[in-house]
Amino acid sequence: MVDSTRKVYLFLWDCNSPMDKTKVAIVGVGTVGAGVARILLDHGDRTAKNAGTTLWLETAVVRDLAKPRDCDLPDGVLTDDIQDVINNDEIKVVVQLIGGVEAARTIMLELLESGKDIVTANKALIAEHGPELFAKARELGRSIAFDAAVAGGIPIITNLTQCLAANQVTSLRGILNGTSNFIVSQMEQGADYDGAVAEAQRLGYAEADPAMDVDGTDAAQKLAILAHIAYGAEIDWKKIPKTGIDTLDTVDLKYAEELGYKIKLLAVAQMSDDGLELHVSPTLVKAGLPLAEVRSAYNAISVEGDQVGRLFYHGLGAGQKPTASAVVADLIDTAVGRTALTFRTLKLFTEHNPSVQICPSEKIVGRYYFRFVVADEPGVLADITRIFGTHNISIASVIQHEPDENETQAEGVYVPLVIMTHTACEGEAESALTEINDLPNVRPGSRKMRVLN
Amino acid sequence: MVDSTRKVYLFLWDCNSPMDKTKVAIVGVGTVGAGVARILLDHGDRTAKNAGTTLWLETAVVRDLAKPRDCDLPDGVLTDDIQDVINNDEIKVVVQLIGGVEAARTIMLELLESGKDIVTANKALIAEHGPELFAKARELGRSIAFDAAVAGGIPIITNLTQCLAANQVTSLRGILNGTSNFIVSQMEQGADYDGAVAEAQRLGYAEADPAMDVDGTDAAQKLAILAHIAYGAEIDWKKIPKTGIDTLDTVDLKYAEELGYKIKLLAVAQMSDDGLELHVSPTLVKAGLPLAEVRSAYNAISVEGDQVGRLFYHGLGAGQKPTASAVVADLIDTAVGRTALTFRTLKLFTEHNPSVQICPSEKIVGRYYFRFVVADEPGVLADITRIFGTHNISIASVIQHEPDENETQAEGVYVPLVIMTHTACEGEAESALTEINDLPNVRPGSRKMRVLN
Repeated sequence: MVDSTRKVYLFLWDCNSPMDKTKVAIVGVGTVGAGVARILLDHGDRTAKNAGTTLWLETAVVRDLAKPRDCDLPDGVLTDDIQDVINNDEIKVVVQLIGGVEAARTIMLELLESGKDIVTANKALIAEHGPELFAKARELGRSIAFDAAVAGGIPIITNLTQCLAANQVTSLRGILNGTSNFIVSQMEQGADYDGAVAEAQRLGYAEADPAMDVDGTDAAQKLAILAHIAYGAEIDWKKIPKTGIDTLDTVDLKYAEELGYKIKLLAVAQMSDDGLELHVSPTLVKAGLPLAEVRSAYNAISVEGDQVGRLFYHGLGAGQKPTASAVVADLIDTAVGRTALTFRTLKLFTEHNPSVQICPSEKIVGRYYFRFVVADEPGVLADITRIFGTHNISIASVIQHEPDENETQAEGVYVPLVIMTHTACEGEAESALTEINDLPNVRPGSRKMRVLN
Repeated sequence: MVDSTRKVYLFLWDCNSPMDKTKVAIVGVGTVGAGVARILLDHGDRTAKNAGTTLWLETAVVRDLAKPRDCDLPDGVLTDDIQDVINNDEIKVVVQLIGGVEAARTIMLELLESGKDIVTANKALIAEHGPELFAKARELGRSIAFDAAVAGGIPIITNLTQCLAANQVTSLRGILNGTSNFIVSQMEQGADYDGAVAEAQRLGYAEADPAMDVDGTDAAQKLAILAHIAYGAEIDWKKIPKTGIDTLDTVDLKYAEELGYKIKLLAVAQMSDDGLELHVSPTLVKAGLPLAEVRSAYNAISVEGDQVGRLFYHGLGAGQKPTASAVVADLIDTAVGRTALTFRTLKLFTEHNPSVQICPSEKIVGRYYFRFVVADEPGVLADITRIFGTHNISIASVIQHEPDENETQAEGVYVPLVIMTHTACEGEAESALTEINDLPNVRPGSRKMRVLN
């Protein structure tokens, strides 16, 4: 049964023990699927040692057999008919790597019905249909593993479900979208937004249509998954307030730097007196803090637990090999039997903790960065600070430089005014912004961003 | 069965399901043991939810019943007789937190013989007697969990055994001794070595006798455990070349800073062409790298895998709550059944990979920092650089300042000379050091340290 494409498939240290075989299928052989196939084919000794069984790639399903792909598959493995998996009772585990939501959902339900355990990296599917899919898997006595769905190579799901099980998580802050982080890093180095997006596309960090990454959707879906695991809360990712980096202006990166901060697209889930605070937005993070120093397409997560204190994870959040690393770890967990035990015990997505309420966004407390464009005239700063005062917001720092002569315009001289506040309610900050925008000497284009406490 | 000390012990979300009970004993109720007892007693709902069974603290064994301890135990739990655990067949899992090696070994063997699964935080015991204890546990169908033994709250054992199972680790670099890191951090801020040790003792970061921490023993034992897991190699921790921070001079911290580096007690296990490189030593790490920025008593580990790339973990490596967090996670894993599966599959400590050879220390390749005290006379630098040249070591940078007038001594003017090299063999670097020390114009007290590539 060993052919030339399957390089090792011998149990390295323990050649005497008769090793059984777990037949695996991959559905969707794109970038990640090819990475998974390569690990299974090239490192069969390693996966067999860690799984206690040979992970045998039996079938790989693709839409278009003719399309070139990034791995050599042994003869007889490739098919374009999902029924070859569904009807093969010997295939026990399926790595389901189809993108999108509806088709992926239908196929996953079919696979579960046919008795397969599932490993997936599809975060949109889990965020959207987790409750339905997990309930179906439980009903059928099957399991779904999904560590690759969030933060790629950083094994955050297993760390939350298992390693931190003695803790109540009190805060979780993540840089969960590598594309956005890469784009912001490029902008810090002087690129404009469009140039940074083009560079991200050229390097394969961004899709042809980067909308889901840059508008915060991807990070919100990942945050919904993590927050459900960490807090047991029932979370609709579409209700998480989100702002993406597509609204970011390089001038704000410069002011942030002047104030000693970096801007990161931060996904936050933390407990407050008013409930579970959830949001995704470009946020000023003090330079030198680990989250501020996350560069390029890396991801990072800072988790605080009531026992463990603060734990920080940093690694590659996307890409063929890091994501395949997470998928194959799940595959090994499933083959060993750990996934089934965890799945049965935790009841993720099928039970929710009704005592955890989502904090209304207007009650979220934090510090804020504001940038206004104001007429360079007496009284404007007084008007603005008065409005902040009426909303009980105290000011921590102000930057206003002398007007640049080139910026003088026909209708008068306008200058940027940057204000960092002490802690304030989101609702008050938003009201103050509205009132300030209504001042006659303030031009449109004001900006408000969170500052990490 | 619920008494007032046991605060919750109700299944939070699922009150209808009849919850069974797993009886647990703690042997050794010091700082960590009290932390474990507190989690079991105060957060019974949480542990029950995550374990799928109530973790019921049945018995806690101490040496001295009269000694005050940092937790309130329910009546009937405390005993000074280990036989109360050994003879109680209802106790399934024992948290064994006795320090030291020989007594702990004897008790662990007795506990295994009496049918208990074990959770421990005793790294010296695992490093010293891992093979014997793990073989005995396998023979008896029992398991040993030990994530708390290395890096406290950072769940590095589970991450290596499970989350990174698709990878061949290529390098592992850790700050594994928080006491040393705290002392070096204090020295960076101007304290001398003795003052820093005293401060560490005052804050509870260092024992009355800090020898095992500051001489590198603790880090070498932890490294031996991690390197066995990551590479399958048979490792005797006593053979790992180690230098502690007890030899560190504040002047080297200053030169390191001038060169743009920080000094960290680094434990390293990485594959090279000549085998597995292992060492513990104060090492210059480029400022700005995550490992360089680890402050105070924190631990950190940078792991590189052939699939996942570089993963970085940062957290509290010691202390009551972080260590208890790891112990209780292991307890939950054991109760759920994951530990038994992992233990059976991986065969840690009872099988070794004979193909992994330890790299002889003279063949280790790296960059080096040297500080010499040399006569301020013509020709000395020429002699030294000639010796480096004959050993094929090229020089990357040199610091020699003008002599301080106060340092002029009866026997002439001596000045420090600091040299950073490019990559060189440890053997050649050591030979060059010996030859340079024999030069007539070089005073005793030369220093050689590794520089992280």
